[in-house]
Amino acid sequence: MKMTTDALTVFLQDAFPQVADDFLIVTDSEDELVIDMKISEAHLRPGGTVSGPSMFCLADVAFYLAILRQIGPEALTVTTNAHINFMRKPVAENLLGVPRLLKQGRVLVTGDVLIYEKRDTSRQKPVAHAVMTYSIPPQSAIRSEPE
Amino acid sequence: MKMTTDALTVFLQDAFPQVADDFLIVTDSEDELVIDMKISEAHLRPGGTVSGPSMFCLADVAFYLAILRQIGPEALTVTTNAHINFMRKPVAENLLGVPRLLKQGRVLVTGDVLIYEKRDTSRQKPVAHAVMTYSIPPQSAIRSEPE
Amino acid sequence: MKMTTDALTVFLQDAFPQVADDFLIVTDSEDELVIDMKISEAHLRPGGTVSGPSMFCLADVAFYLAILRQIGPEALTVTTNAHINFMRKPVAENLLGVPRLLKQGRVLVTGDVLIYEKRDTSRQKPVAHAVMTYSIPPQSAIRSEPE
Amino acid sequence: MKMTTDALTVFLQDAFPQVADDFLIVTDSEDELVIDMKISEAHLRPGGTVSGPSMFCLADVAFYLAILRQIGPEALTVTTNAHINFMRKPVAENLLGVPRLLKQGRVLVTGDVLIYEKRDTSRQKPVAHAVMTYSIPPQSAIRSEPE
Repeated sequence: MKMTTDALTVFLQDAFPQVADDFLIVTDSEDELVIDMKISEAHLRPGGTVSGPSMFCLADVAFYLAILRQIGPEALTVTTNAHINFMRKPVAENLLGVPRLLKQGRVLVTGDVLIYEKRDTSRQKPVAHAVMTYSIPPQSAIRSEPE
Repeated sequence: MKMTTDALTVFLQDAFPQVADDFLIVTDSEDELVIDMKISEAHLRPGGTVSGPSMFCLADVAFYLAILRQIGPEALTVTTNAHINFMRKPVAENLLGVPRLLKQGRVLVTGDVLIYEKRDTSRQKPVAHAVMTYSIPPQSAIRSEPE
Repeated sequence: MKMTTDALTVFLQDAFPQVADDFLIVTDSEDELVIDMKISEAHLRPGGTVSGPSMFCLADVAFYLAILRQIGPEALTVTTNAHINFMRKPVAENLLGVPRLLKQGRVLVTGDVLIYEKRDTSRQKPVAHAVMTYSIPPQSAIRSEPE
Repeated sequence: MKMTTDALTVFLQDAFPQVADDFLIVTDSEDELVIDMKISEAHLRPGGTVSGPSMFCLADVAFYLAILRQIGPEALTVTTNAHINFMRKPVAENLLGVPRLLKQGRVLVTGDVLIYEKRDTSRQKPVAHAVMTYSIPPQSAIRSEPE
């Protein structure tokens, strides 16, 4: 790990002041990264559910932080593509994003994020599943496996 | 068409007051729907480019309005899944979203949205391409083709 | 579980005689479904690697069988959409597909499939990751959760 | 254009002898590339429709040939990811794949493929829509735009 939870929190506040306050970076029992998103009026859609773009934002931030944790603070790392399935309508309360890296290559990093209602402590009913691909600036790509 | 541009504008303001002011609904020379997104500080990322979630939001709103234009005002129509490719980094100015319906079924509506910088008047260099699938409430699905 | 490994094998042979011989249905140590794909000349691409469509076929068959195992023999269950990331070039040997159901709804079933080289016994380096959505015929959808 | 239809046909036969006979490379009235896929018993699924993996294969070949037409014969160009929506069940007859390049970058090429029944001469009812991203070997990437 190249960045602690505290370092990620400071980085997020510097790089994305617009959204940083919506997110709390925590780690779970196995020291895996978990992102806790505070849901407010701005994130809602008709019927009292959380909007798709808000869940997409959680997936994006969660995967971005999972990459930075591995490669260090690279603000210019960018999303190349994303696929998101919305599976259940969450209630208007905090959501958790749980990122997983599947491949860290020289140029592209790929993985996914499961999104749960925070109250779903058993994590059996994900509300959304996002697959993310990021491209990382060339100079950061040390210690990756060959593609 | 079941809704005019004016009707869509009123509906957007009622259903999504959080984001409605960011969007202007226009139609192009062939009477196709085009959504004009005002980019402000809240939409930016490091390097002065527009954030991925902001472009996802434009794609989501543009496709949603394209569906409502066909089926009428159904606020409970929801995104089932989405795939988005980020192809070029846009400058921090207005973006246009151009939706296209490819299939309107009984339950699912599928299509895509091309996103351009507003200043790219030739529309030769899309900055993002999103494929969207929405599910529509059963009672709205009149006049669709069988699946 | 509504179908045993033997029942799935017979079903696959009946419904998809064209490809059934390429697949062996096994279960792993935790009684999870694993599909073993025999790679032959027909599946290769220049450079001696397995073609993308062949890996897509493995993902499709693996997820289809995972659904049938839950809902019983429904040949008319069909793929609605799929997203696949190709992450590493596999050598031209057997591949394993490991499906996971994330949501079984009334109409749509969603989940993903990780594909590994069979020789990668630690399963640390997936070669591909597919997210699949299937739609199931209405009468099969008993015991699903409400959408 | 760096390759003619004839050159693409020869290349396909050399590089993919396993599937080349299923495909006929044609161009339409605007000199755009169109790929005509011959459907045989091997491509079918229960109900007499064309299998998902067969349509994926058509999308993959069509997009690959569209890239080679631009950059020249690069057999090692590979699919990075793909998203495919299956929208209508085609009858068991020839299919057409119509590729479109949206971005040709230094490393990644992105675009989509619409798939039609050949008998649907108005091309109003696509049966599938695939979004493809390919990565191209570094030395081929001349004349691309900066990323």
